[in-house]
Amino acid sequence: MTERLPRTLEQRKTDTLAKLSAPAADVWVATAGAEPGGHPRSYLVPLSLAWIDERVVLATEVGSVTAGNIISQRHARLGLGPTRDVVMVDAELEHAYGLDEVPADLARRYVMQANWDPRESGGMLFLVLRPLRIQAWREVNELSGRTLMRGGTWIT
Amino acid sequence: MTERLPRTLEQRKTDTLAKLSAPAADVWVATAGAEPGGHPRSYLVPLSLAWIDERVVLATEVGSVTAGNIISQRHARLGLGPTRDVVMVDAELEHAYGLDEVPADLARRYVMQANWDPRESGGMLFLVLRPLRIQAWREVNELSGRTLMRGGTWIT
Repeated sequence: MTERLPRTLEQRKTDTLAKLSAPAADVWVATAGAEPGGHPRSYLVPLSLAWIDERVVLATEVGSVTAGNIISQRHARLGLGPTRDVVMVDAELEHAYGLDEVPADLARRYVMQANWDPRESGGMLFLVLRPLRIQAWREVNELSGRTLMRGGTWIT
Repeated sequence: MTERLPRTLEQRKTDTLAKLSAPAADVWVATAGAEPGGHPRSYLVPLSLAWIDERVVLATEVGSVTAGNIISQRHARLGLGPTRDVVMVDAELEHAYGLDEVPADLARRYVMQANWDPRESGGMLFLVLRPLRIQAWREVNELSGRTLMRGGTWIT
């Protein structure tokens, strides 16, 4: 494996924004819910992503486990791969829009990046998530300095 | 994008075992814990993986969020990428071994596949997870027939 120098903060931010804005980008979406007994239970799926006005926008089915968990917990943890060049995002739910209420511009920009239109299926939700913490690292030598955003604010 | 025919059950199982057994394979590990207020909270990290005797073996730090969540909830949901050729595994914790108690053969086989030795650091745990459900799909046309294992038993 090539031994690379750790990237600067600025380079990591540039690379992270490029990953978040990439056409047809997918993201691993981890959410949690409560089992009938009250125990926390994790869930994980890959979904298409759009990066719109510093927000992560996802689209998923109204009745899905992911939608239910995000709406009840108002939180998701997102991972963009590959696993040795990751971006991790902790985000809070800002808006959940049904198809009859989603702003046309938001939907249009989602379609442009994700390259599919959730409005063509019934029963979909657009979820707008505000990043609170963003971290990016490749290998062990990048664990230090991996935090790019904290409390919703980019570190400079 | 090339339109591919959906794979057979047998082909998916073969591909899945190849992914799980690949040298230096990484997996996205989603776990859940309870926040101080009792609300479920999701966590997600990429970790190295070994596939040993039909078990997923992970190694992580004793005090990590992932270790704490897996030990308290006895469950993890795992995703192997890329996101358009995924394997999803729901698994239960079978054993958690500290470095002073891990069977030598298990550690040896972990090192062989993962290509690093957790025993060289202090304070690590080996977590042995038993798959209960395994699913594999590439594109939408593979969503049907994606379940390969149910209740810990491979579907035939």
